[in-house]
Amino acid sequence: MAATPATKWRDIDDLPKIPANYTALTPLWFLDRAAMVHPMRKSVIHGSREYTWRQTYDRCRRLASALADRSIGPGSTVAIIAPNIPAMYEAHFGVPMCGAVLNCVNIRLNAPTVAFLLSHSQSSVIMVDQELFTLAEESLRLMEEKAGSSFKRPLLIVIGDHTCPPESLNIALSKGAVEYEDFLATGDPNYPWQPPADEWQSIALGYTSGTTASPKGVVLHHRGAYIMALSNPLIWGMQEGCVYLWTLPMFHCNGWCFPWSLAVLSGTSICLRQVSAKEVYSKIVKYKVTHFCAAPVVLNTIVNAPKEDTILPLPHTVHVMTAGAAPPPSVLFSMNQKGFRVAHTYGLSETYGPSTICAWKPEWDSLPPETQAKLNARQGVRYTGMEQLDVIDTQTGKPVPADGKTAGEIVFRGNMVMKGYLKNPEANKETFAGGWFHSGDIAVKHPDNYIEIKDRSKDVIISGGENISSVEVENVVYHHPAVLEASVVARPDERWQESPCAFVTLKSGYEKQDQNKLAQDIMRFCREKLPAYWVPKSVVFGPLPKTATGKIQKHILRTKAKEMGPIPRSRL
Amino acid sequence: MAATPATKWRDIDDLPKIPANYTALTPLWFLDRAAMVHPMRKSVIHGSREYTWRQTYDRCRRLASALADRSIGPGSTVAIIAPNIPAMYEAHFGVPMCGAVLNCVNIRLNAPTVAFLLSHSQSSVIMVDQELFTLAEESLRLMEEKAGSSFKRPLLIVIGDHTCPPESLNIALSKGAVEYEDFLATGDPNYPWQPPADEWQSIALGYTSGTTASPKGVVLHHRGAYIMALSNPLIWGMQEGCVYLWTLPMFHCNGWCFPWSLAVLSGTSICLRQVSAKEVYSKIVKYKVTHFCAAPVVLNTIVNAPKEDTILPLPHTVHVMTAGAAPPPSVLFSMNQKGFRVAHTYGLSETYGPSTICAWKPEWDSLPPETQAKLNARQGVRYTGMEQLDVIDTQTGKPVPADGKTAGEIVFRGNMVMKGYLKNPEANKETFAGGWFHSGDIAVKHPDNYIEIKDRSKDVIISGGENISSVEVENVVYHHPAVLEASVVARPDERWQESPCAFVTLKSGYEKQDQNKLAQDIMRFCREKLPAYWVPKSVVFGPLPKTATGKIQKHILRTKAKEMGPIPRSRL
Repeated sequence: MAATPATKWRDIDDLPKIPANYTALTPLWFLDRAAMVHPMRKSVIHGSREYTWRQTYDRCRRLASALADRSIGPGSTVAIIAPNIPAMYEAHFGVPMCGAVLNCVNIRLNAPTVAFLLSHSQSSVIMVDQELFTLAEESLRLMEEKAGSSFKRPLLIVIGDHTCPPESLNIALSKGAVEYEDFLATGDPNYPWQPPADEWQSIALGYTSGTTASPKGVVLHHRGAYIMALSNPLIWGMQEGCVYLWTLPMFHCNGWCFPWSLAVLSGTSICLRQVSAKEVYSKIVKYKVTHFCAAPVVLNTIVNAPKEDTILPLPHTVHVMTAGAAPPPSVLFSMNQKGFRVAHTYGLSETYGPSTICAWKPEWDSLPPETQAKLNARQGVRYTGMEQLDVIDTQTGKPVPADGKTAGEIVFRGNMVMKGYLKNPEANKETFAGGWFHSGDIAVKHPDNYIEIKDRSKDVIISGGENISSVEVENVVYHHPAVLEASVVARPDERWQESPCAFVTLKSGYEKQDQNKLAQDIMRFCREKLPAYWVPKSVVFGPLPKTATGKIQKHILRTKAKEMGPIPRSRL
Repeated sequence: MAATPATKWRDIDDLPKIPANYTALTPLWFLDRAAMVHPMRKSVIHGSREYTWRQTYDRCRRLASALADRSIGPGSTVAIIAPNIPAMYEAHFGVPMCGAVLNCVNIRLNAPTVAFLLSHSQSSVIMVDQELFTLAEESLRLMEEKAGSSFKRPLLIVIGDHTCPPESLNIALSKGAVEYEDFLATGDPNYPWQPPADEWQSIALGYTSGTTASPKGVVLHHRGAYIMALSNPLIWGMQEGCVYLWTLPMFHCNGWCFPWSLAVLSGTSICLRQVSAKEVYSKIVKYKVTHFCAAPVVLNTIVNAPKEDTILPLPHTVHVMTAGAAPPPSVLFSMNQKGFRVAHTYGLSETYGPSTICAWKPEWDSLPPETQAKLNARQGVRYTGMEQLDVIDTQTGKPVPADGKTAGEIVFRGNMVMKGYLKNPEANKETFAGGWFHSGDIAVKHPDNYIEIKDRSKDVIISGGENISSVEVENVVYHHPAVLEASVVARPDERWQESPCAFVTLKSGYEKQDQNKLAQDIMRFCREKLPAYWVPKSVVFGPLPKTATGKIQKHILRTKAKEMGPIPRSRL
C-alpha cells in the first residue's frame, strides 16, 4: 500500500477571522484603555484647565457623536486649524471615532494656501482656534470666490481658549461660528464609536509644508497610526505615565503620532500655545516633564536662551527627541551638557514622523563627548515598526556598500509608509518607484549600519563635477563662535558651475561687528576644516527664511543666491 | 445652479496597498533589526556558549534554509521537544522564516500523549533535545504502530547540548538522527527569507496541557505574535537591552511570546535547562538579569528557598512577571520584600500568553504592604494589544456591574485572541460563542475596573446551592504558617451536595508533626476568616499533582476527593 501524501497545514487550518479574534488595528482603543485603567489621571493640561483620562474620553466621544449627528462620518474630512491646545488633542481621537479623516492645517500658512488645502481635502467641517478665526474666514471667502454658487460652506466651529483675550472669540461668534464647547455639549459622552471596518481606512491627511512649492496631501491610515503609536514609546524607552510637553506642533505630521502614543502610555500632555525657551524650562520644572520633541531650531533656542529664561541645572533628566535636518554636533553636545538626553531621529510626514533613530549604544558612554555628539548626529537605524530601510544608488537602485562613503538615496518599505499622496497619481508613481518609498534624502551607510544624511538630493552642490554636501559645510560653519544658524546652498559660478554660498544668522552681540571681516573669518575657519572647493565663496548675513515647522527654506535661499549672480572667474 | 454634492473621501482616496507601504505583520523582522542594530551584542547565553545577534540571525536563517531544502515550508509543521536551550529560541524564528508552523511540545508529557500531538499536528520534522530523544523515539514507535504501513517517518533532528553528558547524543546519532549543528551547516546564513504572504498565516501551534483531559491545539498567527511581541515590553516597561532569564518554558505558549519581544528590545536571553532557586539567584547576579517570568509555583520555590541557595539582598531590582493561578498575597508580599518587583498578569495559551495585567498605580506606593499585595493579587486590566476584555453574566451574556461582587466569566475580543483550535470545530463553536472568546474563568469586576478571578468555572464548589470560590479558600489556607501549597476542590457531601476539600503540601519541618492536629488547626484557621460553609471539611496532606507547566491538576484532585467518598450527614 502506497503512503498517502500528508495533508498539508493549509487544508486542515480552516480558521477564519471572526469578531472574537480579529478587529481593525486602530489607535482609538488606546484611549478607551487609558480611561479604563487610569480614569482619574491627568490626560491633558492647558494653563489652568486640566482634564482626566475619563474626561478626555468623554469629550472625544462627545465630539464624535456631535459630528456624526451632522452626518460627518466615513468619507468626510474634518480640518482643524489650531496650536497645541486640548481640542487639538481631542480631534485626534474624536474625528476618527466617527469614521472621518482628520486634516491638521499648518497654522502659519497664509489664506490662499489654506484655501487650497481646505478645497483639495474637501473638508466639510473646520475647527479653528479663536485666534486663527480670521485666517479661516479669509480662506473660506477665497474658496467661495473661486467656486461661485457651487460653494458649499463647511461647518465652522470656533475653539475658545481661556488663555486668550475674549475679543477674537466674540468676533467669531458674532459671525455665526459654533463654539467648540457648545458643540461638544450636543454630543453623547457614551457614544458607541466603532473601529473602522478596514484598518486601511484613512485616519489623517496632512499637507507637506515642505521646502518645495506645491503642497502634497499625505494620507495616513489606522493601521500605520497604530503601529507608530506603539513604536514611539518602544524606541524611546518611554514609560507608562510619562509627562510629555507639546513643543512639537500637532499639526506637524500629527505630532509624529505622539497623541496616540500618549494614550498607549496613559501619559500626560502639557499643552503649549507658543514655544519659548522660558516656557519650556518653566513647564519642565512645574509638571516634571519627562519627554518632549522638537525641531533642531527649537533646540537651538533652548541652548542659546539668555540665562534668565533658563532653569539650570535641570531638576531631572529630560528626554528630547529631535528630527528634521541633522542638528549640528555642537548643539547636541550642548544639550547633553545641560541635562537633556537627546534622541536623534529622522523621518518624513510620509513615514508617520520619525522612522529612524540614532539608537544609543552603551559602549558609547565612555567616549569623549565630541565623539559621542558626532555619532549621535547620524540618522541611525530603522524604527521598530518600519520593516525595511536602505540606502540605494540613485542610478542602479542597488544598495550602496556600508562604507561610510558611498552616497545614495534613503528608501523605506513597510507598514509605516503612507498610503500615498491624495489625488496625485504622478507624485505617487515617482515616490513609490521600484517598490520603495523614496525619501529624496542623500545619505551614506556606515560600517555599523547606521545611516547618515549628507543632503537632500536637490540640495547637493555640484562644483566642477564634484558633489559637495551642503550639510557637511553647514556643520563646520555652525562651529564658528559667531554663528547661530547657517544654511549653505549652491550659487552659480562662472568657472565651477556651482559653488557653496553660506547664509548665516549671527548670535546676539555679533550683529554689530564688521560683517566683511566676520565673513572672511568664517571662510578662513572653513578652510581649516574642509577641502578647498567646499569652502563657501560667499557669506550672507541675516534671518533665514523658514517653513511653519521651522525648516529652513533652501529653495528661497537658492533663488537669492541665483539673484546674486554668478561668482566671476576673476575672483579665483 | 444647484450645489453639486461634495465628492466623498472614499471616491478620491484610491490608494491601494503596494509593496512599498504594506507588508504582513510578523515578529520575524525584529530579528533582522536586532542583528542590524546590535550585531555584536549577546543574544542568547547558555552555559559557556554565547551567541551574538548577528550569529543568532545567521543560525536562524541557516535553519530556515536547511528546512526549505527539505521541502519544509508553508503548510508544514515542525515540532520541537526541548527545554530552554538556544535551539529552542532559534526555532521561534527559523521555523516561521521558511513559512512553516512551530509546534512546541511540552517535554513533561508521556510518549502516548506526545504521539497523539505529533500525529494530530502532522509534524513532518521533529527537533529534539538529546536528553529527550528516547521520548521522541518511543512516540514515533507508537505512531508507526498505529498508522501501519501508511506511516511516514518525520525527519528527526537531535539537538546536542554541551551541558549534558554525551551518551544520550551518541545513542541518538547511532539511531540515524541528524545532529542540529550538522543540519544548520547545510543551510545558508544569507537565506533570503520572506514574510508570510498573509499575516493571518499560522506561526505556532501549542497544545493546552490544561487541567482537562483532551489536549486542544491552539493556533496562533503572525499578526497576533507581532502585536504580543510589542505589547509585552510596553506593558512591563522593559527597556532596550534588558537581560531576560528563561525560567518560563518556551514550550509553554511560546514563552508568552517573549522570544519575539526580546528581539524587539535586542535583549539578552539567559537559558536555563532546569529551574531551581539556586540557579535563579546565581544567574541573576552573574548576568545582571533584569526580568523573568514564572508560574506561581516557581515564585513559591524562590520565596521558600533555603538560605544557602539564595543571594540576598538582590544586587539590583529584578522584575518578575507571574501568571496562571493568582499567587496568594502572602507570596507576592514576600517576593516584594526580597527585592523582586512582581507584575501580576493573567492569560491563556489562547491569548498568546498574558492578556491582562494588574497595572501598578503610583498611588498604591504609600499603602500598607498587605494592602498592596491584595491589590496586586488581582488580574487587573487588559493588555495594550488586547482590544476588549469584559466579565459577563454566564446566563445573559451581559457585562456584570463593576461592584467587586457580581461574578461572571472573563471574555476577550481582539487581535490577541488565537485563530482557533486545530481540527476542532465543536470546541471553536463553544469557545467563540456570542462573538467573544470565553476564558472559562470566573471573576468579578472591581469599581476601579480591575478584574479579579474567583475561580475556573468548573472549579466553583456548589455547597447547598451556594457558590464557593475555591481560590478564596486557597488564599486563606495559604496564609497558614505550615502551608507551602494548597488546592481546594469539591468533595461530594451527603447533605450539602458538595463541600470544600483542601489538598495541602507542608513546608519542610512540618511534615513530621501530627497531621490530624495540623488538619484541625488549618480548619480552625479558616473558620476565623471565612463563612462557615466555606471552611474545608477535609484536609489531605501530600504532594500536589501538576501539569508540565506547574499548574495544579484540579481534575485529579477532584477524582481523589470523589474516591474518598461523600462526607456523611452524621458528621454535621
